[in-house]
Amino acid sequence: MGDLTQLMDNEVFRAFASYAAIILSKMMLMSTATAFYRMTRKVFANPEDCATFGKGENAKKYLRTDDRVERVRRAHLNDLENIVPFLGIGLLYSLSGPDPSIAILHFRLFVGARIYHTIAYLMPLPQPNRALGFLVGYAVTLSMAYRLLKSRLYL
Amino acid sequence: MGDLTQLMDNEVFRAFASYAAIILSKMMLMSTATAFYRMTRKVFANPEDCATFGKGENAKKYLRTDDRVERVRRAHLNDLENIVPFLGIGLLYSLSGPDPSIAILHFRLFVGARIYHTIAYLMPLPQPNRALGFLVGYAVTLSMAYRLLKSRLYL
Amino acid sequence: MGDLTQLMDNEVFRAFASYAAIILSKMMLMSTATAFYRMTRKVFANPEDCATFGKGENAKKYLRTDDRVERVRRAHLNDLENIVPFLGIGLLYSLSGPDPSIAILHFRLFVGARIYHTIAYLMPLPQPNRALGFLVGYAVTLSMAYRLLKSRLYL
Repeated sequence: MGDLTQLMDNEVFRAFASYAAIILSKMMLMSTATAFYRMTRKVFANPEDCATFGKGENAKKYLRTDDRVERVRRAHLNDLENIVPFLGIGLLYSLSGPDPSIAILHFRLFVGARIYHTIAYLMPLPQPNRALGFLVGYAVTLSMAYRLLKSRLYL
Repeated sequence: MGDLTQLMDNEVFRAFASYAAIILSKMMLMSTATAFYRMTRKVFANPEDCATFGKGENAKKYLRTDDRVERVRRAHLNDLENIVPFLGIGLLYSLSGPDPSIAILHFRLFVGARIYHTIAYLMPLPQPNRALGFLVGYAVTLSMAYRLLKSRLYL
Repeated sequence: MGDLTQLMDNEVFRAFASYAAIILSKMMLMSTATAFYRMTRKVFANPEDCATFGKGENAKKYLRTDDRVERVRRAHLNDLENIVPFLGIGLLYSLSGPDPSIAILHFRLFVGARIYHTIAYLMPLPQPNRALGFLVGYAVTLSMAYRLLKSRLYL
């Protein structure tokens, strides 16, 4: 077990673990937000989900789409599209021996930008608030990919 | 190479690797299920996919949506939304030196819950079967995030 | 820090890191492609995104769907569905002490197949070009899962 806990003794890796766990937990909240809007607005995608509101044709009227629910789902999918590259590239970048202060700055910027992106998407705030959150997270991830490939490329 | 195989000598990490490979393979089966329903029901999203069933306007009638196909696609997306946090948080939690029996219990519950969720979604079983599968997997992932952050938080 | 950089001294792990960073960067380009088509074709999903093109009812006409945008979004989602298993299974397989030449062949085939899949999807090329790209990537990931589970199964 000693070897493993040594990984977590590394400052960069431990910081990556903390920021990754935080941003993934935030992403999981989007499921709760979707469920909240589906139930309060009675908007469902599956017949079995609205069986308690009526039987047969009476229940079918709840099988519909709703702007609010679709907005949360788009925010959730955008999270997936951006947090998956952060996870993969960030993990490998953390293991490539980067400068700790630069690495931790990357993690903080990414997590801050994605939280801001979610707030801007769900409020919603006028553009370019959401675009800014997206672009900062995107640039941070590409910067980590560039640093990883520059120092450790092996094809 | 010695250092790497030592990682796999660790009981928790090796168990995580097995459960992660199993649940990711299960998720990949959803692509096969989608392809199966698309071909047996002749329901396609791209014009080039139904070119063999006719030319021009005749082929366009297969560009449609179908309840069965959409159900599999929703189950697949729900898998992605929940298995990605399990992968990221579970990997980092495995490396944080947890108690092996507690860690392996988390992995088993997650994998069991997600397999049950898929069965409940595709049959479909009446609610709250699918909700139960979802909630157990969700709670297990949050529990791992909490344990990781409690023992190793570094911001 | 020594232990971490030793991970990157391992040939297989370093190759995995490079191929993973490349294919994740490619996946991120899909966001740029979506944004490009949304802006050049004036096709938006959120009212705040088209506020600069007019006010009130005048802006609403840009809230629509477009074949080209939907095609890029399907390619992006297919990437997510396939690159997530590659990342998880590939990382764990890399750590299981595989034969370097076999492991690197897996990574190269996967990355080549997914780039081909994207080209076939966006051009689009006639089938079975896209199906071939998908199937090669799928088979490579399952092959890594099989090798990992065969050598290291621990449930």
